[in-house]
Amino acid sequence: MTAPFRDLADTPIPADAGARMHAFVAELYPLCRSITGDGLRRTLALIAARIPLEVREVPTGTPVFDWTVPREWNIEDAYVKNAKGERVIDFRASNLAVVNYSAPVSARMTLAELRPRLHSLPDKPGWIPYRTSYYKEDWGFCLSHERLLALEEGTYEAVIESTLEAGSLSYGELLLRGETDDEVLISAHACHPSLANDNLAGIAVATFLAEMLLDAPRRYSYRFVFAPGTIGAIAWLAAHGDETRRIRHGLVLACLGDAGRPHYKKSRRGGAAIDRAALHVLKHRGDHGVREFSPLGYDERQYGSPGFDLPVGSLTRTPNGAYPEYHTSADDLAFVRPESLADSLGILRDIVSVLENDAVYRSTNPFCEPQLGKRGLYSAIGGRTFQDDLEVALLWTLNLADGAHGLLDIAERSGLPFDRIRRAAAVLREHGLLTPDGGAQ
Amino acid sequence: MTAPFRDLADTPIPADAGARMHAFVAELYPLCRSITGDGLRRTLALIAARIPLEVREVPTGTPVFDWTVPREWNIEDAYVKNAKGERVIDFRASNLAVVNYSAPVSARMTLAELRPRLHSLPDKPGWIPYRTSYYKEDWGFCLSHERLLALEEGTYEAVIESTLEAGSLSYGELLLRGETDDEVLISAHACHPSLANDNLAGIAVATFLAEMLLDAPRRYSYRFVFAPGTIGAIAWLAAHGDETRRIRHGLVLACLGDAGRPHYKKSRRGGAAIDRAALHVLKHRGDHGVREFSPLGYDERQYGSPGFDLPVGSLTRTPNGAYPEYHTSADDLAFVRPESLADSLGILRDIVSVLENDAVYRSTNPFCEPQLGKRGLYSAIGGRTFQDDLEVALLWTLNLADGAHGLLDIAERSGLPFDRIRRAAAVLREHGLLTPDGGAQ
Amino acid sequence: MTAPFRDLADTPIPADAGARMHAFVAELYPLCRSITGDGLRRTLALIAARIPLEVREVPTGTPVFDWTVPREWNIEDAYVKNAKGERVIDFRASNLAVVNYSAPVSARMTLAELRPRLHSLPDKPGWIPYRTSYYKEDWGFCLSHERLLALEEGTYEAVIESTLEAGSLSYGELLLRGETDDEVLISAHACHPSLANDNLAGIAVATFLAEMLLDAPRRYSYRFVFAPGTIGAIAWLAAHGDETRRIRHGLVLACLGDAGRPHYKKSRRGGAAIDRAALHVLKHRGDHGVREFSPLGYDERQYGSPGFDLPVGSLTRTPNGAYPEYHTSADDLAFVRPESLADSLGILRDIVSVLENDAVYRSTNPFCEPQLGKRGLYSAIGGRTFQDDLEVALLWTLNLADGAHGLLDIAERSGLPFDRIRRAAAVLREHGLLTPDGGAQ
Repeated sequence: MTAPFRDLADTPIPADAGARMHAFVAELYPLCRSITGDGLRRTLALIAARIPLEVREVPTGTPVFDWTVPREWNIEDAYVKNAKGERVIDFRASNLAVVNYSAPVSARMTLAELRPRLHSLPDKPGWIPYRTSYYKEDWGFCLSHERLLALEEGTYEAVIESTLEAGSLSYGELLLRGETDDEVLISAHACHPSLANDNLAGIAVATFLAEMLLDAPRRYSYRFVFAPGTIGAIAWLAAHGDETRRIRHGLVLACLGDAGRPHYKKSRRGGAAIDRAALHVLKHRGDHGVREFSPLGYDERQYGSPGFDLPVGSLTRTPNGAYPEYHTSADDLAFVRPESLADSLGILRDIVSVLENDAVYRSTNPFCEPQLGKRGLYSAIGGRTFQDDLEVALLWTLNLADGAHGLLDIAERSGLPFDRIRRAAAVLREHGLLTPDGGAQ
Repeated sequence: MTAPFRDLADTPIPADAGARMHAFVAELYPLCRSITGDGLRRTLALIAARIPLEVREVPTGTPVFDWTVPREWNIEDAYVKNAKGERVIDFRASNLAVVNYSAPVSARMTLAELRPRLHSLPDKPGWIPYRTSYYKEDWGFCLSHERLLALEEGTYEAVIESTLEAGSLSYGELLLRGETDDEVLISAHACHPSLANDNLAGIAVATFLAEMLLDAPRRYSYRFVFAPGTIGAIAWLAAHGDETRRIRHGLVLACLGDAGRPHYKKSRRGGAAIDRAALHVLKHRGDHGVREFSPLGYDERQYGSPGFDLPVGSLTRTPNGAYPEYHTSADDLAFVRPESLADSLGILRDIVSVLENDAVYRSTNPFCEPQLGKRGLYSAIGGRTFQDDLEVALLWTLNLADGAHGLLDIAERSGLPFDRIRRAAAVLREHGLLTPDGGAQ
Repeated sequence: MTAPFRDLADTPIPADAGARMHAFVAELYPLCRSITGDGLRRTLALIAARIPLEVREVPTGTPVFDWTVPREWNIEDAYVKNAKGERVIDFRASNLAVVNYSAPVSARMTLAELRPRLHSLPDKPGWIPYRTSYYKEDWGFCLSHERLLALEEGTYEAVIESTLEAGSLSYGELLLRGETDDEVLISAHACHPSLANDNLAGIAVATFLAEMLLDAPRRYSYRFVFAPGTIGAIAWLAAHGDETRRIRHGLVLACLGDAGRPHYKKSRRGGAAIDRAALHVLKHRGDHGVREFSPLGYDERQYGSPGFDLPVGSLTRTPNGAYPEYHTSADDLAFVRPESLADSLGILRDIVSVLENDAVYRSTNPFCEPQLGKRGLYSAIGGRTFQDDLEVALLWTLNLADGAHGLLDIAERSGLPFDRIRRAAAVLREHGLLTPDGGAQ
């Protein structure tokens, strides 16, 4: 067994990381993404400009489990013009204005005829909703309720210059090989148009995490997947089959930029190592929320389907659906905060550090405590009330280094942060007081 | 495996069920029941007029485990007359007035001599207590404390026209056979005289539940036992021996008519299926109480003795001993409410529905979600914040239909009521998306 | 299987036990104990005057696991004199005044030179701290901060008339053999100088417990160890090796005399029988605190090292470090209360009673309840709301006497105090209703 990964834990998040991730979000924001098409492809290309992403194309019509890859959707323009020829709904002003995956149309109709095609949010009258119709050929427009109410009776021209044609579904993948083939999966959905928190924030944080890991020593292999939600994850799973058995830990990343506190949603298994690692990190970092697994949400639905049952949790800040801006035009660049992005990256760094460094050791002196004082690890003057932090971590680590407890177990039982236990274990190894379990064989 | 029982869950409790059960309680109320004798026999006959009950007689002297069936007790009249010849205590006014199982007596005595034979409730001066002396030959009278205090010094005539003779102990039994020999036991004690809640209410609700089950398809066999408390249950258990191994679930029913909220007392095992089913139903129906098993109470004491350890819980409203009217003349017809009886019957219907319908399924598409949209089971326009109830139940059921979770497990983990999961499973089976576990073999 | 130990549970703590233990604390208080030396030896001799303690000597230089028995320390006198020849620090006034294990010294120096050798407590200016330097040869003095501040500039004479020479480490041991070789370990550290609660209180209570056990029938063997902290426990463990496997239960006793409520610190295993017994006793005795195991504290650190992992908990009143007087001159005779010592002894008696009497029985009538009434164990007149304490305990004991539950299990599940279950079991055995599990073979 080689020395455990150490570097990432000691790597600070750069002061400008939040601003740089926000700038990346801003760069991606204008693109009209969907579950297929050029907006998605351009998004993957911009990620690939930062990390060595490989982009895969899955042709229209490919069966993937119970699903079929749909026709590719692209869109040039879309609008509704009033009788004066004014664009009262305009895709060029917001790509949310068209129901995503709308079939092409060019028609004149009365407001009454058009009305069933128009989606708005009566209780958020200034915001445009985000709506899709991927699997039922349809078309429609989204607009603010204020604007809807202002539409006058008369004849309107509705135009959607889109195409629905044989093509392919794109996803991006990066495998960073580590010392072992065991994998950590990091997955972010990449199909939403101009919605900043959901999920450009997840994409940006995942991309920066990959950048940090590129140059770090790695015990695990890391697989980053940027794919359209649902159908993309399903296509990826269909393409990887048995390889998915290598996934030891995984996280779906989404909504990582809003001002809310972080939330962790457990994997289907509930007590997997990723669940314990994430909850440990969040507990010691401060206020956070915990949610049990449910088969609603993002692609943890697919990773956690019963045939796979992968240990994949989900990290967000405010969970999807739990903030009013969710799936509306108010999920914009101002809704995403640089400091939240940076904090999210820090959480991920800490979780990865736990995964990398968690290991089982054995004390070389299991009978009674070893004499730390003669090794300079214990204060010489005794009798004081409190022992210092390192002494406490050393004693806990020695006491539980019995081949049955890993460092995360020790951190949890002692109540100490993992990183302190990790450092205590390193000191004890330097002094020959710990050996990796199985290492003496 | 055949289709699971479905009908009872969809059967409403008739609007007049409460009133009809209350009328049945009123019909039974005047009888002077005991653990043997004609009052008990007449009670069983009135039940048998509604459901095809079989009545068994166990002769006096029959050994039943550590016990022996006692002599049969019957009573014609009992009273205490004062010097003027007035009945100051009168069995004909209330059959609680005599200590149940009193030996015959006819004696003149002073008040001081009589006094130790008189039982009253000083802190409930208007109520007559219920007292028994089954296994020690004795006699006595019960009266209100007010009346006791009003007794004047003088000579009294105490007469009890009872018999204690070789005879038999009666109990009633109804076995409704189902698709399997596995049984659900429903047990109600039938030995108390004019006490309405304890346990004419339990008898009435059990009788009406049996009526509902008579015409319903049944996966389980249902065994209803109406027997005197303790000795009757012991005699029944002694007679059935190894057959009791067929009992998969059971409930002791008592005190089901008062105005209090329902209470469930767990079986000795604590986590048996009946415990989970009952607690699930009560949780979703509203306010209720839960009690751990204890070897005090009704015949769950015998079913839960260590040699049997049957999974038998107990359903009551306010538990025995926890309402002041318990075992007094105030447990009368007014104390029992039609709406409580009807609610108790509804709880039982729901518990039975869980037992009948709980089953393990497997998704036919375990890898990733099946595409519900193409089957018309998922809304076409995506992007909304909340999914509807059926969608949520479908997704939970598919996710946990892995051969390891039954429908009750799924209901518990999802937090959804069992009935919604049951309906989701039915829809999924119609669409070929679920198969019974083992069904494909 | 013989009759279980019964006597100790029924033995009251004598009314003068607290006063007598306090007198014993006072007798031991003036001695200058350390981890070796004559102060420790005299302490053991005073214990041996009360109970048949055997004193062992482990020579200087003996390797004990990772440690080595140090040179023996003895001290005659120590002081600091000012220019006027006045003893401004005086070992004869308080043996805390010298850093314990100080090397001999005789030197003149300025206050500035002396100052780094002086230890005080700025936030407790009237108290002298307790400091040690066992394993690094050093010397120093302890004094109140008030006195430190009052020292004038000038030349001082520092004298410590101590010796550090080849000798031995002493510990005392008493083994009271019982019916079985299975042992209960009672361990108290005996190395602290004039500190009354820590740990003359523990020594006194352990000594009196041993006195109580001397004449009692014993199922277990009891091993009392009075040894210097850490090195003494390590030397004891090193000397006993495989014998420690006989230890079924153990307690480290310390700080048992202050006015605070009792605290139990769990063994490393957390759910050992000693943990359950101690927590049960404390729960039923009243207010108390519970602490999880940690590898900080007293000799439970060594007993709970991973190679031994002995089921040894710790009983204190206010835990070490949690009261301001800890390791200062304020931990004096007034700080220790006779009534606290007596209460601590009562707790230990009750814990020992649980250990001695806990056993697994089987009901001789496992099918249904046995008829208690015919044995005079059940009130004849039925119908009352509440059953008496003995009836309740009898029913619980019978119900759970299934060969799988011990009496402590029954006490825990019933919520009744162990002693009531113990007495119910005794009654049931007298009536032939219980047999020891395996006893019929």
